[in-house]
Amino acid sequence: MIFRQLFEPLSSTYTYLLGCSDTGAALLIDPVVNSIDRDLAEVQRLGLTLAYTVDTHIHADHITSALQLKQRVGSRIAVPAFDALPCADVGLQEGQPLRMGSVELRPLHTPGHTDGHHAYAQVDRVFTGDALLIEGCGRTDFQNGSAAALYRSVHDKLFSLPEDCMVYPGHDYQGRRVSSVAQEKQRNPRLGGGRTLQEFEQLMAELKLPYPKFIDHAVPGNRLCGVCPDDLPEQLQAYCQRMGERMTDSPQG
Amino acid sequence: MIFRQLFEPLSSTYTYLLGCSDTGAALLIDPVVNSIDRDLAEVQRLGLTLAYTVDTHIHADHITSALQLKQRVGSRIAVPAFDALPCADVGLQEGQPLRMGSVELRPLHTPGHTDGHHAYAQVDRVFTGDALLIEGCGRTDFQNGSAAALYRSVHDKLFSLPEDCMVYPGHDYQGRRVSSVAQEKQRNPRLGGGRTLQEFEQLMAELKLPYPKFIDHAVPGNRLCGVCPDDLPEQLQAYCQRMGERMTDSPQG
Repeated sequence: MIFRQLFEPLSSTYTYLLGCSDTGAALLIDPVVNSIDRDLAEVQRLGLTLAYTVDTHIHADHITSALQLKQRVGSRIAVPAFDALPCADVGLQEGQPLRMGSVELRPLHTPGHTDGHHAYAQVDRVFTGDALLIEGCGRTDFQNGSAAALYRSVHDKLFSLPEDCMVYPGHDYQGRRVSSVAQEKQRNPRLGGGRTLQEFEQLMAELKLPYPKFIDHAVPGNRLCGVCPDDLPEQLQAYCQRMGERMTDSPQG
Repeated sequence: MIFRQLFEPLSSTYTYLLGCSDTGAALLIDPVVNSIDRDLAEVQRLGLTLAYTVDTHIHADHITSALQLKQRVGSRIAVPAFDALPCADVGLQEGQPLRMGSVELRPLHTPGHTDGHHAYAQVDRVFTGDALLIEGCGRTDFQNGSAAALYRSVHDKLFSLPEDCMVYPGHDYQGRRVSSVAQEKQRNPRLGGGRTLQEFEQLMAELKLPYPKFIDHAVPGNRLCGVCPDDLPEQLQAYCQRMGERMTDSPQG
């Protein structure tokens, strides 16, 4: 499998490029509109054709490039079926792998950051979106989030993967790029080290995070598979269209 | 490829088990005598046969189990040819991959921690021994170590691997298990972030590390592919034979 971990600096998002060396097909997990040209150039540089975009959830901190990529290169939009987006081409759900040549993604319903959040597992790695970050996790106070649900998602679905399964998160704000299930079980200060559900719920309830600056624009835009609303203030329009300064809060608070 | 990252807690050493699913052959990188029973049990649990032990260098903080494994299950002892150990079966050198079924290790001569140190690269990962640790590196003040040599090894050999190449270190003292070339280039406080050769040499010269407690026993023992010297004090004998308390210093100081 061809693999690239790409970083979008405005929202500190990791986008993952997975390519099938047999068929030349590629997919992008969580592509960001700000980096659409860079991502497309990388797909082309590798001699691949973009077959799918795959989002882990309805993002609140950036706009997905799924729709624009579909318009530019004809890729199909795959999102959790749970979110019931009319703009999607493929609805993903647990138990139904997405296959693209020799590349397979196994969706794992991992609610808690959002209710429709899915992680995508392969044999040796898992793309955890905002459910599990390196030494962190996504916040649980919007989009039908739930600390109890996130605790169960991480413990029952992600921490039950093999110890050496590599963890590729949806974001990192300190340049960390990869972890493993064993590492997060031991070191994650929110969810690892034997922390109980009750302790996690209390910790998340006491974070006292500010209201996310971009959420009111990003969520409706992403429910349309990636549209910058027309009525955005100029600075946010620039951000949405990939030229602005950093406007987002960390989704882990 | 079958893959396991195993941890030996007395010396905080990572031992890597690599298995070929076609042939059932396995090898262990940097196995520690203290964990010989656990490692053999894991090989057997996976239905594999141990074909090789592979050491990255002459260790100063623990005794390799290479010789005992050879005596118990007939595995062949592979070490850097540079070290010219009469007890070895296979001398590894850069440019000559070790092949075991579909598993291939590409030796990279990475002197600096010791003069004979080799890392072992695969397509998507590299076992860096003590040349490059997660946010650290091995010390350079014994065994013909050299900060200048280590800087060149890391920059020319390891940092020139693909950005997404996973870094599996020889040790970690904080439960971190995996990094990537991109992550170490950016975050390694000794060798990354644009630090110059001169800065690195100065930093290593100023570490003022204590004399390693176990080195006078470990180095001759490991030059015999893993023998606990007869004349060890009782406590060190126990450590050497896998029952003792932690006796080692961190090789990164």
